[in-house]
Amino acid sequence: MPTEMLGLLLRHRGIATKEGYVGNRLDRPADFLELGGIPRPVPGPGQILIKVRRAAINPSDIAFVQGYYGQARMQGQPAGFEGVGTVVEAGPGLMGRLLKGRDVAFYVTPDGSGAWAEYAVTQAAVALPLKKGVSDRDAAGLIVNPVTAAAMLELVGAGDAFVFSAAASQLGKFVAGLARDQGKKMIALVRREDPIKLLKELGAEYVLNETSPTYAEDLERVLSKEKPVIFLDAVAGSASAQVHKAMGDDARWIIYGKLDTSPAEILDPSEMIFRNKSVEGFWTTSWASNTSFFRKLLVFGEVQNRFRDGQWTTHVSTELPIEHAIERLPQALAQPDGKVQILLS
Amino acid sequence: MPTEMLGLLLRHRGIATKEGYVGNRLDRPADFLELGGIPRPVPGPGQILIKVRRAAINPSDIAFVQGYYGQARMQGQPAGFEGVGTVVEAGPGLMGRLLKGRDVAFYVTPDGSGAWAEYAVTQAAVALPLKKGVSDRDAAGLIVNPVTAAAMLELVGAGDAFVFSAAASQLGKFVAGLARDQGKKMIALVRREDPIKLLKELGAEYVLNETSPTYAEDLERVLSKEKPVIFLDAVAGSASAQVHKAMGDDARWIIYGKLDTSPAEILDPSEMIFRNKSVEGFWTTSWASNTSFFRKLLVFGEVQNRFRDGQWTTHVSTELPIEHAIERLPQALAQPDGKVQILLS
Repeated sequence: MPTEMLGLLLRHRGIATKEGYVGNRLDRPADFLELGGIPRPVPGPGQILIKVRRAAINPSDIAFVQGYYGQARMQGQPAGFEGVGTVVEAGPGLMGRLLKGRDVAFYVTPDGSGAWAEYAVTQAAVALPLKKGVSDRDAAGLIVNPVTAAAMLELVGAGDAFVFSAAASQLGKFVAGLARDQGKKMIALVRREDPIKLLKELGAEYVLNETSPTYAEDLERVLSKEKPVIFLDAVAGSASAQVHKAMGDDARWIIYGKLDTSPAEILDPSEMIFRNKSVEGFWTTSWASNTSFFRKLLVFGEVQNRFRDGQWTTHVSTELPIEHAIERLPQALAQPDGKVQILLS
Repeated sequence: MPTEMLGLLLRHRGIATKEGYVGNRLDRPADFLELGGIPRPVPGPGQILIKVRRAAINPSDIAFVQGYYGQARMQGQPAGFEGVGTVVEAGPGLMGRLLKGRDVAFYVTPDGSGAWAEYAVTQAAVALPLKKGVSDRDAAGLIVNPVTAAAMLELVGAGDAFVFSAAASQLGKFVAGLARDQGKKMIALVRREDPIKLLKELGAEYVLNETSPTYAEDLERVLSKEKPVIFLDAVAGSASAQVHKAMGDDARWIIYGKLDTSPAEILDPSEMIFRNKSVEGFWTTSWASNTSFFRKLLVFGEVQNRFRDGQWTTHVSTELPIEHAIERLPQALAQPDGKVQILLS
């Protein structure tokens, strides 16, 4: 095993000090990442070393490399929160030894070494041995989006409806199927006609096109019929503010991304007072640290079964060999549908 | 007893259908109110009839007459949420009979008849027999502001600091004293130099002038020292948004009024996600309906003792005889300090 490895390395440290976060866009990757060789990391107590085959590029990665993801960057270390590969080494600890030689989907804990590299290090506790029949494409994105989908839906009451913006995303597709199975009605908001049919098939109860001339009336009608109180929002711009205003009493605008640069204004503050509306945030990392280990195990197991049984599938729009990732990233992210993944040789 | 009475009557019904709420200003009172004679109301079961001596004008009244207070208006009926007077009649029920002939401070329940009139009707349960030594000036505003102050401070943890905007208000003065007695540190925001000394004497730990050239640094320094998470805000404009942004993790921006017309923008939505910040509302009516009867009794009793013992006092800037109230209201409300009260003959 070589003692050097190739990785996409972070060019900056810490958290961004200036504003300007725009979700899932990275127009100048070379300002934030460089391809380079560094010593292969060594797993510590409770940790494992994984030979990575494929890694996901999630909106949270894009936020992180720019310093906008609430977790400090380590300059010169690889980025990348999740991937799939084979456990080749384990630090002290029973769990790691049991995983040695197994194929795992993994999430990189803050004490680890990122997934956008030939080798990654993480806690053995957050590596999931792959069940038979789960493909590498699905396994590479097994944790962040599906677990986020499951965690978000815990905010919605049984039988209730909820609003979900930017629903054509991979996360939106996961949410659609999970919502139907849990008897929750997804009111999916999209900005094009194409994804409407698919989202309905996957399980969304309503799909509304924000660019349609009848959108305002359509939204009004659905909101007054279903009376949703949860609005899961990746956009956080003026269109989101309008949705929150159109919703009824007790409406909770729950922001988990910022895809839009327009201002997120509280259009009528008196609704916060007299109609008990609120604005909050959602962060999977917070959810995970406030949720019991057993509850999480249950969620992870359920997620894997869904991929194995074909209920969920990952649509990969672009596969980027690590050597070409930096130059091809802007164009790959500009695709409206599907995930971008990094291939390690 | 005459069967007709004079009152300031509402000219519109229901809730306002257009936006435009600006707190505690009523530039054209005659658009919303008219002085008129109507039949004296008759108390129903559980209700009492009060001969009103003096009534308060609170920001909630000003919002209500314009239809911005979350409670439907009854066209042709008197406005006014609180006052002081003598119980002259009681509908069926023990509590009302016991109050007959007593001087009471009262709040008008939605089933009652407003306080800006010679006679008012409300539930006997929300009339407080006056303790000896409580003046009519204090009694006329005994409920809304003091109870709001007490209810708001329940949001602040023991020993914690909190930010309070528009602190020169009567409510702000109540909060200052109560906060000190409860060991909570008030960071009071004002827009002039005059009220600073008084607020400190009353009990505010810090008083910052938003118009001072050193305000931004002063705020920064106090916030980083005290780390408040509660921001009680009557302003809900761009200055409030800046305060919320300057606050640290878990900061809750709790809006209870809209004194400013500038937009209440969430300046950095990513702070909702990664720093667990939120925007909420506070409405005393909601608090009262979610709080036990005994808890409320305790709060009301405590409030009256504070006035009797001189810890709290009501500064009345203008007394308006009901006959002249409509023409003099805009000027009276323009006074920066003190309450406006209506005198009934």
